[in-house]
Amino acid sequence: MNNTYSIGIDIGGTNTDIGLVSADGRCVARKNLPTRQYFDADLYVSDICKKITEMMDEQHVDTIDGIGIAAPMGNYYTGCIDNATNLNFRGVTDLNALVHKHLDIPVTVSNDANAAAYGELVYGGAKGMKSFITFTLGTGVGSGIVIDGKLVHGKTGNAGELGHAILIPSGRLCGCGRKGCLETYTSATGIRYTALELLEKRPQYHGVLAQIPKDELTSKHVGDAAKEGDPLALEIFEMTGNWLGIAMANAVAFSSPEAIFLMGGPVKAGEVLLKPLRESFKKHLCFVYDGSVEIKVSELPDNDAAILGAAALTKAAR
Amino acid sequence: MNNTYSIGIDIGGTNTDIGLVSADGRCVARKNLPTRQYFDADLYVSDICKKITEMMDEQHVDTIDGIGIAAPMGNYYTGCIDNATNLNFRGVTDLNALVHKHLDIPVTVSNDANAAAYGELVYGGAKGMKSFITFTLGTGVGSGIVIDGKLVHGKTGNAGELGHAILIPSGRLCGCGRKGCLETYTSATGIRYTALELLEKRPQYHGVLAQIPKDELTSKHVGDAAKEGDPLALEIFEMTGNWLGIAMANAVAFSSPEAIFLMGGPVKAGEVLLKPLRESFKKHLCFVYDGSVEIKVSELPDNDAAILGAAALTKAAR
Repeated sequence: MNNTYSIGIDIGGTNTDIGLVSADGRCVARKNLPTRQYFDADLYVSDICKKITEMMDEQHVDTIDGIGIAAPMGNYYTGCIDNATNLNFRGVTDLNALVHKHLDIPVTVSNDANAAAYGELVYGGAKGMKSFITFTLGTGVGSGIVIDGKLVHGKTGNAGELGHAILIPSGRLCGCGRKGCLETYTSATGIRYTALELLEKRPQYHGVLAQIPKDELTSKHVGDAAKEGDPLALEIFEMTGNWLGIAMANAVAFSSPEAIFLMGGPVKAGEVLLKPLRESFKKHLCFVYDGSVEIKVSELPDNDAAILGAAALTKAAR
Repeated sequence: MNNTYSIGIDIGGTNTDIGLVSADGRCVARKNLPTRQYFDADLYVSDICKKITEMMDEQHVDTIDGIGIAAPMGNYYTGCIDNATNLNFRGVTDLNALVHKHLDIPVTVSNDANAAAYGELVYGGAKGMKSFITFTLGTGVGSGIVIDGKLVHGKTGNAGELGHAILIPSGRLCGCGRKGCLETYTSATGIRYTALELLEKRPQYHGVLAQIPKDELTSKHVGDAAKEGDPLALEIFEMTGNWLGIAMANAVAFSSPEAIFLMGGPVKAGEVLLKPLRESFKKHLCFVYDGSVEIKVSELPDNDAAILGAAALTKAAR
């Protein structure tokens, strides 16, 4: 048995979760910090390092093989956060250098979508796979691409932004300023948008989604309604699954992976999303790939997925 | 100076070109065979090997470091041609085994689009690059993807079929049976189709393209007319460049390459295609990649490009 532990840190706009992860992928302890209350990166990282030391003491762990940090705009090549819009410390934050003021442990930084892919590779359903792609459905759509057992970072470090591949030219306006990006259709936000569009088009519908004030309606409401058989909610997931199936078929034409993993809130809707998704994927997949790709749901436990992904970065093949 | 030579073989439906390639990427001798006249793969490969031996004798070359073969449906993993529809020997043709009946030289097989990418990497404009993508515009649209200095083959060996990524959901019918594939819009065939569509829509147009019988009209006519400033031809290339720019921006969101290389007949149209293409690429590229990717035209000499690509397969990193 390997007794090595790693630290996984998931930096979100509101909270920072810090976890101690065993070699077999269990998060054995965790602590957190209120990200939003920090305006000084130096103090913020100093407090993170204190929490790590406390956690090691409490758990009687002497050595840590690495610290993996998943952060918005986290740059794998530089170890920095580059101008994240939802953090109070702006500009470039050199996490790697700041951690090393306090701890002599290797640090690996990446964005959360890439960390999710490594989490699946090291601790989840992609163990032993050479080639796979993950799609994380959240506020946006994140993705991570593994080829030959390594995450693809590309020239910029920003490879694998499939949420910003254009699905429908001249389609819905995206937060990035362009039109028709995948994430405007299949993120939680995109699902909400589809719901509002359909509610507008179907004044004769008086089901459960029509009862929710429009500014409160979320993709979770749609998921819950679909599970209860609500026809409008089912139609929304038919559309979402169809779009996602096209995007996944296109991704296969790129790297011909062994599997595609799905994660994130809307995936909890289950078969109401997965069934139309699989149908669309099959219909839109080029015949040369028939039968070569599995569509799977992430095998990481929901609560620990982000920490495990971050911890997995420490195992990243360079 | 490296005195090693390689053999590059380009198998087309009509002709098979066999070239002797020096280490510095010159095709110093070539021979060919009429592919269509062979119904027996054994005899066909035996004749190829005879030509190779003749060529080595004539050029006083003793050693060959490898034979690279670019073939329709050429499979990198197995060294076979898998059920190519445009060859008279059907089923699976084990090129690797057949060559080894006659010559004891390592054989590497791949499809022509992948060979083109290796040609660019080993002998062309991508020398020294780690990450790039090629688009070959021909009857279809072929592509090759290089990441970390290696061509991406994927689980099936068929990675990099970007001509069959869906650009416009429910768009033009493709030969593969699906709708909206990139190649229905931006191949030579796609350009011809766009021309016929526009001619139909513009009865008031009486320019040079209207004078050509519809069943004789080709993308080359459109290219020549565009260079002369014909407004309909220019509009066709505006549309083609726009579509290709979207597809390239989407490819960047996948692997964040250093460059994208364009090759094939329609690229000879030059700026009438490249200008709208660059504009569309810039418009559709996600901001995180701004300024990180060059769009370039292949630097391989037209006449030898296919042979050089095939020969480059012998240098393929495994």
